[in-house]
Order: sequence, then structure tokens, then C-alpha cells
Amino acid sequence: MRLARHGTAGTESPLISGADGVWRDLRPVVIDLTPDTLPTVLDGVDVDALPVVESPGRFGPPLTGIGKIACIGLNYRQHAAETGAAVPDEPIVFLKTPDTVVGPDDEVLIPRLSLKTDYEVELAVVIGREARYLPDEAAAAACVAGYTISNDVSEREFQLERGGQWDKGKNCETFNPLGPWLLTADEVPDPQALGLRLSVNGEPRQDGDTSDMIFGVHHLIRYLSHFMVLRPGDVINTGTPAGVALGRPGLPYLRAGDVVDVEIDGLGRQRQIFGQA
Amino acid sequence: MRLARHGTAGTESPLISGADGVWRDLRPVVIDLTPDTLPTVLDGVDVDALPVVESPGRFGPPLTGIGKIACIGLNYRQHAAETGAAVPDEPIVFLKTPDTVVGPDDEVLIPRLSLKTDYEVELAVVIGREARYLPDEAAAAACVAGYTISNDVSEREFQLERGGQWDKGKNCETFNPLGPWLLTADEVPDPQALGLRLSVNGEPRQDGDTSDMIFGVHHLIRYLSHFMVLRPGDVINTGTPAGVALGRPGLPYLRAGDVVDVEIDGLGRQRQIFGQA
Repeated sequence: MRLARHGTAGTESPLISGADGVWRDLRPVVIDLTPDTLPTVLDGVDVDALPVVESPGRFGPPLTGIGKIACIGLNYRQHAAETGAAVPDEPIVFLKTPDTVVGPDDEVLIPRLSLKTDYEVELAVVIGREARYLPDEAAAAACVAGYTISNDVSEREFQLERGGQWDKGKNCETFNPLGPWLLTADEVPDPQALGLRLSVNGEPRQDGDTSDMIFGVHHLIRYLSHFMVLRPGDVINTGTPAGVALGRPGLPYLRAGDVVDVEIDGLGRQRQIFGQA
Repeated sequence: MRLARHGTAGTESPLISGADGVWRDLRPVVIDLTPDTLPTVLDGVDVDALPVVESPGRFGPPLTGIGKIACIGLNYRQHAAETGAAVPDEPIVFLKTPDTVVGPDDEVLIPRLSLKTDYEVELAVVIGREARYLPDEAAAAACVAGYTISNDVSEREFQLERGGQWDKGKNCETFNPLGPWLLTADEVPDPQALGLRLSVNGEPRQDGDTSDMIFGVHHLIRYLSHFMVLRPGDVINTGTPAGVALGRPGLPYLRAGDVVDVEIDGLGRQRQIFGQA
């Protein structure tokens, strides 16, 4: 099942799509997709009975009211290498604030005075059940509501050259396009077998596979649950594969007007046109 | 004016106290103190006409629905020295997630396997107006709704010895006691002239003054506004003075059963009894 939200930013309506791939209006079932409604929204739903939405138009983020976005750094072997970092012994954790989230095709703003705005395609995990001191990866798997795409936009100077802690370069406005849809966990038999791709102005920049993750999705959830409580509607950005501007010859950072296409197998596509704050 | 919330955790009611120091029921004015209601809650309020609350009982955090908690590291000269760190050239920024917030006197849980849970009394700034690319400190001052107390509880091993980024040791459940009340900015003529104190089991551990901050409150708001948008209801933990367990002889970290008293001039007191997760 795919869950999404469409309409004008801030007043989106919920959508659902089942086996026939047709988008349908989920408003007869729920007012919106939120941390409160997400865990039970599919209980007893007769998708085929819902009204078809012919032209959904703009997609927003696939849920609203997100509580936290826990992010994993350097979680692909080749990406750790390209940044000059060692492969980490355990997951590196940082945070993005939920108000950085925009729709998958919304404009992303390059911050004022930024020279090093970078892109990061990432598999985003949406939590559906509280995760607290989980004993093993099977328990972690049971906490996943589904998967979507994050572009973990990053300002490298702010992140790495301005006095410590990555969060400073990860939380500029619009820095987390999310969506277009949440694919429920039951339709992702193996989250470690998904291709991820990102291009800038049509030029391929990232072409990875979640099989290359150092710490897999279920490992990450179990691990994080010993440092913070994960709650329904929380999001985990699971790290990016190689190919970011920081690691490429010539350091091709983003400029206003650049078009960024982001794609993960089964999770759809994003397209952002970058603007200037 | 003082704003607060009292009652059972999760179902608190709003309170207000004016010049006479008496707590009064704010429910005739507003259902709760949130990022939406905070900016205008005092407009035209006749405090003396509100019903007196004789025994408020438990205080919760002074607002709910907090969007983000931006935190500043090593922002007092003597604290930077005690941790062995250099005085930073510009503010160090990290994040706590809003679901770490508990009431000022609620139990704080020492995480499982933690040996280095530490305390940090901090002046917390509550934002009342959007702060985005502010030009100067006067503009920053206009964005402050008021002030309260944070105990920025920290697990030092998780923060510093587990592979990068402080957030890992800052976001355990219950790690941000907040309150007891928000004192409106008009009653704090100089936020850089407040004494802060913290004791453990009656033994003084921190005794500082906000005049010792490296970057003052208004500087921090202006600075942060160039890296993230601050919105009404967002909180800034402005850093802690010297005296944390990490910097003391014998490293006297917290244990279950410890009683921590936290105090800032004009902002009241907190008392937490630490428990075990």
C-alpha cells in the first residue's frame, strides 16, 4: 500500500493506493496522516471502495506532525571513503528538525552565504510503533510503518568548518524533501536491496544500493532505541551512498537553478529546483 | 508575567501569575500554551479577573508542542576550560528532540548501561516570533517570548565516546526537564545578569552567572537564525556554567536515587529525583 498527501502546502489531504496503482481519496477514513493516525490507518480499510483521485497534483510530505528525524552519517562504505572518513565502528547519529521537511518536488532554498550546499539521496524509514530498548532486529522490524525518500540536503561549510557538530549544516529551511509516498513495510520484503539514484541537471551523481549500508535498517532501529525513544511518525534518514558533491572532483556544489532528481526503487521520484534564500 | 502549566502529565492546564504573585487559571483565555497560542496569549488579558488557583500541584513544562530545542555547547568560559576544550570561535550547535521534555520536578531516567549521566543547569529561551536571517541583536531581542530553566541532562559516554556527534548522548527519554514557569521577556531586563545554581543531594555543584556566557542570548538568536528558522515555541538551551560531573574531581556522575536541585534567579526551582530506565 502507498500512502501520500496531496494539495497546497500546509493543507494537504491524504491519499492511498493499493494493488491497482490508482490514487484514492483517504479522507473518508482519516483527516490526515499524522503520528496519531498512522499506526492504525490501514485497519479494515476497503481501498477499492474509496473515491478515485484522477489528478493528484502536488504531493506534500507523506505525513505531517513528524516528531523527530534521526539521521545516520557515513553509513555506506564508499561514501565514508569519499569523505576521507574511517568506516565507523557504530552508527553516527545526528538530527534534523521536522520543520525542515518539504514536499518531494518543492523548492529547496540555498542558504544565504552558502557556497557548499550538497545533496544526499537516502532511504527514509517511518516508525509505526514505539521503539525503546529493543532486544533484537526482529523487534526492530516490527516497528517500521514503511519507507520513503529523503534528500538530506547539507551545507558542508556549516556542517564541518564552523565549529563543531553537524547539525549546524543540516537544519536550514527546506533542507529535507520527503516523499512522494510512504510504501508500507509489508511491500518491502528486503530494505537492504533497493537501488538509490540522484542526478543534478540530468547528470548522474549518486547510484548506490542499500545492500552497501554498513549498518542495515533493522540494526539502526535497534541501536537508536537504546539512545532515544522512537515513536510513531518519527523518521530515520539512513545515510547516503557515494557521489555527493563533497566527494567529487571539482566539488560541484549546488547553485540556484539546479534541478535535482532523486529516486529509490519502488518509492518513486523527487524533483527539486533549487532557489536562493 | 509568569506562564505555566499544571496537572497530570499530558493533560496539563495553563496558569498565569501577575504582579501579585498569585497563580490563576488561564483556561478562560486559552486551552493550552502552545507555539500557536503563545505569541498572542497575553494580548488584552485582565489577569486579576481570572480565578485564583490555590494549590497548583505538579507543574509540567511551561508549554507543549515545542517544535525544536536548539542547544549551545561550551558557552561559558569556565565550563569550556573544565572539559578541556578551547573557547569556541563561534557557537557550537546541537539539538535535543522535544519528546525529551518533562516537567521541572518529574523523574529523570538514567539510561540502561549508562555510567556517565550528567547534569547541566541552563537558561532556556522560548521564542515568540519567527527568527530568520536576523540582521542584529535588537531584532533578536524582539523574538524572545520569555525565559525558563532547562536541565540539559547528558550521557557523556554516549555523547563523546561512541563515535561522533553529541546528539547521541543528549536525547535519552526524560533528558530535558523544563520549567517551572516561563517568565516573560519584559520582566528580564538583562538576560546576561542571572545567577544559575545546581546541587546534587544538597551539595552545590554549579554556581554560575549568565554574565560569563561567551555568546550572549541575543547573539545566539541572531546567529542561529542564519542556520535555521526559529519559530514561536522553539526553545534554545543556552549552555551550562562550570561544575558538571565531567569536569569535577572523581567524576561524580548521577546515580538512581540522586536528588538534583536546579535554580535560576527569578525563574524558580526544579527538583528531580533520578531513577533507572
